[in-house]
Amino acid sequence: MITSVQNEQIKRMKQLHQRKGRTQTGTFIIEGEHLIEEAHAANWDIHTVVVREDIAAPHYILDTHIIRVSEHVFASIAQTNNPQGILAVVAMKKDTFRPRSLTLMIDAVQDPGNIGTMIRTADAAGFDAVIVGKGSVDIYNDKVIRATQGSIFHIDVIQMNIADAIEMLCENHTKVIATALEGAVDYTEMDVHENMALIVGNEGAGVEQSFIDASDQIVKIPIYGQAESLNVSIAASILMYDMKRKIATL
Amino acid sequence: MITSVQNEQIKRMKQLHQRKGRTQTGTFIIEGEHLIEEAHAANWDIHTVVVREDIAAPHYILDTHIIRVSEHVFASIAQTNNPQGILAVVAMKKDTFRPRSLTLMIDAVQDPGNIGTMIRTADAAGFDAVIVGKGSVDIYNDKVIRATQGSIFHIDVIQMNIADAIEMLCENHTKVIATALEGAVDYTEMDVHENMALIVGNEGAGVEQSFIDASDQIVKIPIYGQAESLNVSIAASILMYDMKRKIATL
Repeated sequence: MITSVQNEQIKRMKQLHQRKGRTQTGTFIIEGEHLIEEAHAANWDIHTVVVREDIAAPHYILDTHIIRVSEHVFASIAQTNNPQGILAVVAMKKDTFRPRSLTLMIDAVQDPGNIGTMIRTADAAGFDAVIVGKGSVDIYNDKVIRATQGSIFHIDVIQMNIADAIEMLCENHTKVIATALEGAVDYTEMDVHENMALIVGNEGAGVEQSFIDASDQIVKIPIYGQAESLNVSIAASILMYDMKRKIATL
Repeated sequence: MITSVQNEQIKRMKQLHQRKGRTQTGTFIIEGEHLIEEAHAANWDIHTVVVREDIAAPHYILDTHIIRVSEHVFASIAQTNNPQGILAVVAMKKDTFRPRSLTLMIDAVQDPGNIGTMIRTADAAGFDAVIVGKGSVDIYNDKVIRATQGSIFHIDVIQMNIADAIEMLCENHTKVIATALEGAVDYTEMDVHENMALIVGNEGAGVEQSFIDASDQIVKIPIYGQAESLNVSIAASILMYDMKRKIATL
């Protein structure tokens, strides 16, 4: 059992709290039994499971992958307020983007909860992939992962240039829909197509103009009351479910 | 200028960080220029505006209502990470519920961000009122207010017993829709009526059974992928916009 926070393995693990440490090692940390179960069920490569002294390790994890640590050491790695006493180091999957029926593209969204919630809702709405573009928070950030509630293990979530993704989608005969206020039609008038992609943008600045220009249609969600705008994850969710509903009628 | 955190007025203000202090005084704190502007524009009663020494007070606030404080004192009251240097003590409005066309009811939702986001989206979707029932986080919690982005000042947000609200809604010939998984129809098959109310429930337990029993219809949002559920504020938003869209076709 590791009882010192100065242990080299523990120190290396803590470097995974930073994007740099994650990128260099190609690994990231997930916390709690539910996420570990989801990663395991989805056949992601679990390198190490760190278990606090008072907790039983899940039966499906090989003994050789388990590290037992004292309460103090566990608390030094955990990033949640009330840690469950179990976390794991998981290898990133280097998915390449293959356009299929439904894609969500996220342009420069800063809030990790918003990104995670959009990945979760994309999964629920039957989307195949989420593209996370430049200027967005790292998808392996602990708050993003927690907000996905495991959906990051269910659908393809790929960090790549959105301009490149749009090019691939066009070659795949996908209709690209951007959200913006100017020159937009009400989302209920969205054209329906078997293959569709939706771009949502930064909380303040919206979708980058060059991505809007490259899109087939611009839509907006009407504001009936006095609110100035919708939260980006709310807007994305209303649109994703509307696209799914419309495609079902084709 | 107040330079001591031991100042009696400052100490009383800090008691507004707790629900007890807010309830006893009938006041709450809002932070940042945007929220103060919204409260002012909506004619809410602003008791006091606390301004950090390096910040100019808004022109529309009477001098007699302004308290200037040192950076240290301001930081001791502020609850945001990067405070803007201005906050205000505002009187609660004792709104009584008057059922009109569209009402959202929130049963025992714990996360302040979820409650605030639902109030913001209810405003955007043209709902008239939000009822926040027992077991939910206090609507005057700073995180709720921040997530509403000012919408708490735009529409009626009332903390009351949901059973009582349902009774008032029924007398007003309002169709009450509950969200649940069992015995539910797909939300796209929701019956439309001029006056409608939607009940959403606790993140884990859902809507209380007695409220479901008192409803006219039970709806659910289908999950097409592998996600186990939707975030409650996402689900509420998809349903509110769908209700608004349907009512427009009446």
